[in-house]
Amino acid sequence: MTKIDLNCDMGESFGRYTLGSDPDLMNEISSANIACGFHAGDPAVMRRTVRMAIEKGVAIGAHPGLPDLEGFGRRRMEVSPEEVFDMVTYQLGALQAFARQEGGIVRHVKPHGALYNMAAADKPLAEAIAAAVHAIDSSIVLFGLSGSELIHAGQQYGLKTAAEVFADRTYQEDGSLTPRSRPGSLIEDPSQAVGQVLQMVKKGTVTTVSGAEIQIQADTVCIHGDGAHALSFAQMLRAALREEKVAVQAL
Amino acid sequence: MTKIDLNCDMGESFGRYTLGSDPDLMNEISSANIACGFHAGDPAVMRRTVRMAIEKGVAIGAHPGLPDLEGFGRRRMEVSPEEVFDMVTYQLGALQAFARQEGGIVRHVKPHGALYNMAAADKPLAEAIAAAVHAIDSSIVLFGLSGSELIHAGQQYGLKTAAEVFADRTYQEDGSLTPRSRPGSLIEDPSQAVGQVLQMVKKGTVTTVSGAEIQIQADTVCIHGDGAHALSFAQMLRAALREEKVAVQAL
Amino acid sequence: MTKIDLNCDMGESFGRYTLGSDPDLMNEISSANIACGFHAGDPAVMRRTVRMAIEKGVAIGAHPGLPDLEGFGRRRMEVSPEEVFDMVTYQLGALQAFARQEGGIVRHVKPHGALYNMAAADKPLAEAIAAAVHAIDSSIVLFGLSGSELIHAGQQYGLKTAAEVFADRTYQEDGSLTPRSRPGSLIEDPSQAVGQVLQMVKKGTVTTVSGAEIQIQADTVCIHGDGAHALSFAQMLRAALREEKVAVQAL
Amino acid sequence: MTKIDLNCDMGESFGRYTLGSDPDLMNEISSANIACGFHAGDPAVMRRTVRMAIEKGVAIGAHPGLPDLEGFGRRRMEVSPEEVFDMVTYQLGALQAFARQEGGIVRHVKPHGALYNMAAADKPLAEAIAAAVHAIDSSIVLFGLSGSELIHAGQQYGLKTAAEVFADRTYQEDGSLTPRSRPGSLIEDPSQAVGQVLQMVKKGTVTTVSGAEIQIQADTVCIHGDGAHALSFAQMLRAALREEKVAVQAL
Repeated sequence: MTKIDLNCDMGESFGRYTLGSDPDLMNEISSANIACGFHAGDPAVMRRTVRMAIEKGVAIGAHPGLPDLEGFGRRRMEVSPEEVFDMVTYQLGALQAFARQEGGIVRHVKPHGALYNMAAADKPLAEAIAAAVHAIDSSIVLFGLSGSELIHAGQQYGLKTAAEVFADRTYQEDGSLTPRSRPGSLIEDPSQAVGQVLQMVKKGTVTTVSGAEIQIQADTVCIHGDGAHALSFAQMLRAALREEKVAVQAL
Repeated sequence: MTKIDLNCDMGESFGRYTLGSDPDLMNEISSANIACGFHAGDPAVMRRTVRMAIEKGVAIGAHPGLPDLEGFGRRRMEVSPEEVFDMVTYQLGALQAFARQEGGIVRHVKPHGALYNMAAADKPLAEAIAAAVHAIDSSIVLFGLSGSELIHAGQQYGLKTAAEVFADRTYQEDGSLTPRSRPGSLIEDPSQAVGQVLQMVKKGTVTTVSGAEIQIQADTVCIHGDGAHALSFAQMLRAALREEKVAVQAL
Repeated sequence: MTKIDLNCDMGESFGRYTLGSDPDLMNEISSANIACGFHAGDPAVMRRTVRMAIEKGVAIGAHPGLPDLEGFGRRRMEVSPEEVFDMVTYQLGALQAFARQEGGIVRHVKPHGALYNMAAADKPLAEAIAAAVHAIDSSIVLFGLSGSELIHAGQQYGLKTAAEVFADRTYQEDGSLTPRSRPGSLIEDPSQAVGQVLQMVKKGTVTTVSGAEIQIQADTVCIHGDGAHALSFAQMLRAALREEKVAVQAL
Repeated sequence: MTKIDLNCDMGESFGRYTLGSDPDLMNEISSANIACGFHAGDPAVMRRTVRMAIEKGVAIGAHPGLPDLEGFGRRRMEVSPEEVFDMVTYQLGALQAFARQEGGIVRHVKPHGALYNMAAADKPLAEAIAAAVHAIDSSIVLFGLSGSELIHAGQQYGLKTAAEVFADRTYQEDGSLTPRSRPGSLIEDPSQAVGQVLQMVKKGTVTTVSGAEIQIQADTVCIHGDGAHALSFAQMLRAALREEKVAVQAL
């Protein structure tokens, strides 16, 4: 049976601040990327989110980010591979402790925001992330943009990898995402976004902005948790996948 | 053969800031309490310190503190047992990841500064620390002030505990430390401090400020790393222990 | 004509996190206490909030807090009067710069959360706050709990002071608030809360939990911004004050 | 009489951490760039440093940096002009409050580290800094790399500017600094560095790495405070300037 993983960023609340609708979205996904306190999240939120993932049978993943709470980890920073190695280690280790206490295990790592984007194109940073994860637990799955340096680095280190695709972003002929600065980068129609996912999952292809159909590796689909219609889109996608007999499950 | 553990706070540098003389002091101790990024330390410093401890055969310990870098974890904060449970979990988990990568293991936990003092007298906070440690790795040794609530909590959770004594602080008849605010709280003469340690280790007693000789449990001696004469005192103590055929080793 | 000031905490968003409904509440109040980046707020939020206050003719106030974003400044910390003097100075100065750029001026200071509570009862901390404010601008009004040490300290330093009262808290016979830990500390019925404000403003008295009627100085009423019914209560209070011909205006 | 300003970064200690030898270096300089708590410094350090500058007759300057204590403000971050405008406002305002309390005034602003380098080449960021400073106090002098976008932006906003030169860095024919990544970027011989300053100050020229003599505007010389020989170099430079009858004074 065809299957796909649906992942979503979770645990992004902090102290007095609440973000996202984790309890609802947790019902629709198979993998939760849990913030680890650098760009979002705090120890109490981490525990709560780990516990919720376990209760709902969702795979626990670490979502390490740059040390920039004010910028939500979305501002690129000039960090060295050594610094990235260490910040991923720190955050992954912290989350593992919560998972262990709650009776779970960290199954994947997906870098957040600017770190994700930097690691998609910067080979030394990508290798630093893969190496840090591998040196902690070589059975952890590394999530990265499909076709990116991060996926290559994970393979190079012998990690299982999950090529991530987006429902609501368009693709260019070289397989990269259309930059947000260009027109047509976003798919605003939910049914078109669902259609793109189905094509990726069932045919292994995507139709680019220019109309070409290219191959794409799709192991996991990113569900954005912070939009107004995040939950309804997730439910719509789940229904369509069910209809098409595509199983939603973690890797 | 009689033996004693010597512990010292390590890895308290941060970013551009250097604190302590870790490479020198690491030669004199058997247990390193490594800061975990809340009151001091950062991921790079943590790795460097873990590596150094492994190289020198010194036991690695986590030294979790309150989230107060500016106050160096020395200002009491009104934190709940749940918050303490979670902040210890986070910090211990982070350090474990570095230990794992470097081929070591975290062998003990000693709370830092205000958290140490609060946990000495506050039973619910002490239990939160013991419970958090136990739920991560029940073979970890919990360090606390000799006779304190933290030691009791550790025993209650079935953890091995290490009763900590101080070379340069005087004791009262009930076994507690003379508060720093009172005259005679500090032992300024190094040879007198060494003498106090020898008496504690060999006889299991300490002579109080009032002149009485009372029982005291001494499993580990705290070496302060931040004084001007920290290194020379540590060397002097090591020499005296050698002379008296007391082995210095981790628990 | 009788008049009263209505104040509310504002600008408590941070980075990606939104808190409160500032644009709505800003219409109902006469004084805005703007967070300054220690317990909440960031530079962008501070500017936005200052600008909004100026547009709506609301008096700008600094709302300095303890350096504890994770705890939202609500956890007591063991800080010295010197530390408090300096943290108030820093935060007040920062807000003044935004006010200056936007064509406004900081008219009052109200400490936040744990700092407010500590300064209500701790004379040296109260004096540190009053002294810091006075040394920056002696025309700034100091807000504090009615009858508190902070009000006394402000008077001692020659500052104008605003005695703050609460609509939804009950009072004891000595004029202090009934602690939240006791039953009957909160007034849950909105019309009863409005009634308490009217009595305070028009008669200068409050009826205590025990049924006695005592004198109370009421210069400004605190409107809580974070409850679900914050806006509707503020509107109800405004309507009642209008009905009773009590003007709502800053001091 | 020919004159020159000597500036140095000051107040870079933080909490328990001490950096630099401010009391000694403060004797040798005419302008102090005081860290404002984002990349270094804290409220207590800011007050202490402002006080010291006033006592020694040294001009007080704000030294705003990126919000990155761990990276000491030396890691570039992807910040927008609006964010830079606001972070400079916040930091400058905070320092002004300390200056006011201590009886001084902030006379100049010099961005720190990565922000300084970014503002040297990035016109929108440079303009954001100049605009923020101008909107607070148009009599403040803006310090920037000689010939940089920051100096141009300052002039454009009608600010007085101070073109900064370096004693120990070499220059290229276009007037820019030889990048640190290239050989010959640093002048390691102190007397050669002193000679370069004298040439800049007296002739208004510098001899480039390629041997050409080019014009350079030199209003202020940066003295690095963190090297091992910082103090002795500063003293040597002062002596040479005295010998050559060049007055050392703030702008």
